[in-house]
Amino acid sequence: MHATNIGAIPTTSTQRRPPSSPLLTTLKERFGDRLSTSAAVLQQHGRDESFFPTQPPDAVVFVHSTEEVAFVLSACSADKTPVIGYGAGSSVEGHFLAVQGGVCVDFSQMNQVLELRPGDLNATVQAGVTRTQLNAALQGTGLFFSVDPGADASMGGMVATGASGTNTVRYGTMRDNIVNLEVVTAEGEVVRTASRARKSSAGYNLTQLFCGSEGTLGLITEVTVRLHPLPEAIAAAVVTFPNVRSAVQCVIEAIQHGVPLARAEMLDALALRAINAHSRTALREEPTLFLEFVGSQEQINAQTEVMRELTNVHGGGEFQWASRPEERSRLWTPRHHAYFACLQLRAGSRSLSTDVCVPLTALAECIEQTQTDIAEHQLLVPVFGHVGDGNFHCMVLLDPDSPSEIEAAEAFGHRLVERAIRLGGTCTGEHGVGLHKARYLVREHGQAGTAMMRALKQALDPHNILNPGKVLPRA
Amino acid sequence: MHATNIGAIPTTSTQRRPPSSPLLTTLKERFGDRLSTSAAVLQQHGRDESFFPTQPPDAVVFVHSTEEVAFVLSACSADKTPVIGYGAGSSVEGHFLAVQGGVCVDFSQMNQVLELRPGDLNATVQAGVTRTQLNAALQGTGLFFSVDPGADASMGGMVATGASGTNTVRYGTMRDNIVNLEVVTAEGEVVRTASRARKSSAGYNLTQLFCGSEGTLGLITEVTVRLHPLPEAIAAAVVTFPNVRSAVQCVIEAIQHGVPLARAEMLDALALRAINAHSRTALREEPTLFLEFVGSQEQINAQTEVMRELTNVHGGGEFQWASRPEERSRLWTPRHHAYFACLQLRAGSRSLSTDVCVPLTALAECIEQTQTDIAEHQLLVPVFGHVGDGNFHCMVLLDPDSPSEIEAAEAFGHRLVERAIRLGGTCTGEHGVGLHKARYLVREHGQAGTAMMRALKQALDPHNILNPGKVLPRA
Repeated sequence: MHATNIGAIPTTSTQRRPPSSPLLTTLKERFGDRLSTSAAVLQQHGRDESFFPTQPPDAVVFVHSTEEVAFVLSACSADKTPVIGYGAGSSVEGHFLAVQGGVCVDFSQMNQVLELRPGDLNATVQAGVTRTQLNAALQGTGLFFSVDPGADASMGGMVATGASGTNTVRYGTMRDNIVNLEVVTAEGEVVRTASRARKSSAGYNLTQLFCGSEGTLGLITEVTVRLHPLPEAIAAAVVTFPNVRSAVQCVIEAIQHGVPLARAEMLDALALRAINAHSRTALREEPTLFLEFVGSQEQINAQTEVMRELTNVHGGGEFQWASRPEERSRLWTPRHHAYFACLQLRAGSRSLSTDVCVPLTALAECIEQTQTDIAEHQLLVPVFGHVGDGNFHCMVLLDPDSPSEIEAAEAFGHRLVERAIRLGGTCTGEHGVGLHKARYLVREHGQAGTAMMRALKQALDPHNILNPGKVLPRA
Repeated sequence: MHATNIGAIPTTSTQRRPPSSPLLTTLKERFGDRLSTSAAVLQQHGRDESFFPTQPPDAVVFVHSTEEVAFVLSACSADKTPVIGYGAGSSVEGHFLAVQGGVCVDFSQMNQVLELRPGDLNATVQAGVTRTQLNAALQGTGLFFSVDPGADASMGGMVATGASGTNTVRYGTMRDNIVNLEVVTAEGEVVRTASRARKSSAGYNLTQLFCGSEGTLGLITEVTVRLHPLPEAIAAAVVTFPNVRSAVQCVIEAIQHGVPLARAEMLDALALRAINAHSRTALREEPTLFLEFVGSQEQINAQTEVMRELTNVHGGGEFQWASRPEERSRLWTPRHHAYFACLQLRAGSRSLSTDVCVPLTALAECIEQTQTDIAEHQLLVPVFGHVGDGNFHCMVLLDPDSPSEIEAAEAFGHRLVERAIRLGGTCTGEHGVGLHKARYLVREHGQAGTAMMRALKQALDPHNILNPGKVLPRA
């Protein structure tokens, strides 16, 4: 089963809709120096971690409050000018490239931790607060915010892309950790999506509608997230396997047995090679699991006992252990640096960083087929995954100036997505759709599902000013 | 802060839209005896567990397949006739009363367990499968489906109302346990809302949009749910407290300390009186916690040790314990029968059964104020709650033939909702909006939030044929 009509990626502007001169004057009057049209600022806001060509907006506004966001949206709505939200700039799917130009709303200065409510196990922050900033503010409360996508992303951006990351297997994705949102609509209306109760059946789930909407339905200005009690103890382990399948199966059987792993990351041999080169370590260059266990010491002991048995069954090697913070950090640092280590496998390269997610029982097969594909096409692609979620990443290293390499990378990404969907999975587990994967929505959701999404977009953004060109494929 | 313009509950039809004669002929040709217009069947499908007057549909179709549901919707859409989904009939908020007449789609015969995938920790069922039926089908797999709202509700109904229940504190609500849905749109199109991957960032979250939509955006035909490994051991305990506040605080502190309670139910003294009368037990008629612990025996021991300490701190009595299945069942049976026991507190009464949910730190205050209100107004209202969620229920016992008692009950319910919202909570934690609470949407979500919901409804159901009169207040 192959899709045939996958169109080209719309990396170039098809239609520019720059702000009118009166709109720019209105914004300048309101924001003064916080409105920028300098080339450097525009360039910086027109590129992300992907290899897509820079596509700058026409202006950038550095907002400080919800009311200011509402002002921008109201003014841009009247002018039918595109508005693009910008958090920490850590997207890998071209989420905020200004393909039609317009006004970029930069949330980096809207970064107040508004309220910590330890007793309710939640906190409210402005959208520009980063996850490490929130966790710093939580010091001393005995609580932490769990979602960790690697990059120090902004909370608004994490909501907008439906982010997740290494400890999703235990604590859930961003979707699972939002209590409510404050959003501003295309017309500049402010909506609180839900109360602060831990659950509700009061009307349509606006919170979840905005989570993963990538700035195309409204701009997120405040986020109330769930917090979790810090575990009593944490232990980390690293263990190698003869092949990817056995590493993957080991984790999946642990999940099936109810072992509450806190993190379970698989890196393939190439990723280990990159790490050794980058970090001057001497890790075995074999498929490797990085594991983290949390709980009381007894719980950790019980969990690790099960993991040792499963490791033996699947031909894994000896566990390397660490429980003291500095040792754990030493053991896990290579994993945390994997992205940059992999980029350095090839000097001057950039990466097509893509992710898919499949049902647990299909994960080993999906990764194996993908590695065969990599070998057949002689590509340089480290693979690593959040195994407990069925989610894995491929970094296709390429020369950004070589059209043929870009084409080969895109073709690989295309086969990867087709494979994942064929196995019952999704074209993206956590990176989001952005500019890159809109062409797969019909393949994954069918014409009727995509039409339903289009109807929702039309209902909330009739003039298509909110991050146009993203999520939905061209009609 | 008081809302002023809370309209009357629209319990009587405002506009009837019966099916045309050609539509009935079309349905009769297709469904034969599975289309019913008999008075008894219509009456049965026009009343739920609430005290609202019966409002029968004009016809009931007993469907067997998604394709049949699509046929009904397509035909009714062309006729602009209302369509109302019907699962197990266990709603308490008038969800399926046919306020405008129309065609009721009864899912009780669409009850096939389609696929169990133990390795992926999920299962796919038709919408009419009940939760106990699914759990029976899972025997021997080592897995179970967790959501338990009390009634043996249908899976489709549980999705439609965003159900939860006693073990939400550990395993999450229905929202947290859906992998994907198959839904049929107003026009009869079939949409699969997501893949079978455990997480996805591929487009708008249609799954969560339909969860809690109460049949107003489409009909749910298939549900893929998450399954959980059965715990190694289970223990149950019952403990009494001098007052509601201490019982509530005991649980909330446990949650704040990260004790993974499986269930934590609080019943007030009146509920205990009802239970003793109903079950011929001799339980102390004091605020009581029913607790359940799961895990390995060591984990349970560790959890119960913490709970004992907290119980002592809060003046609780001795724990009654049970770990063998029949003992646990004996200990918990009174809680499971609480609803019917409470109904029997007063012969011939019916109940206005309402629920609210507030942030954890506001729960004790909200319940205390509510009990003061009950006393001041001399009402008969047992109170019980899923304390770990911040969610509690009030059953206002009333004579359904007494307009003044209904009025007093409604006034109480109104004050309860106002109180919950004032404390940062929601007008319903798990019962849903139905007919009853639509008038609170603006109070809870504001004009802008309610307008957004209305825009979504308009986008997916432009002719308002899907369960009209529910969820959204009259414009």
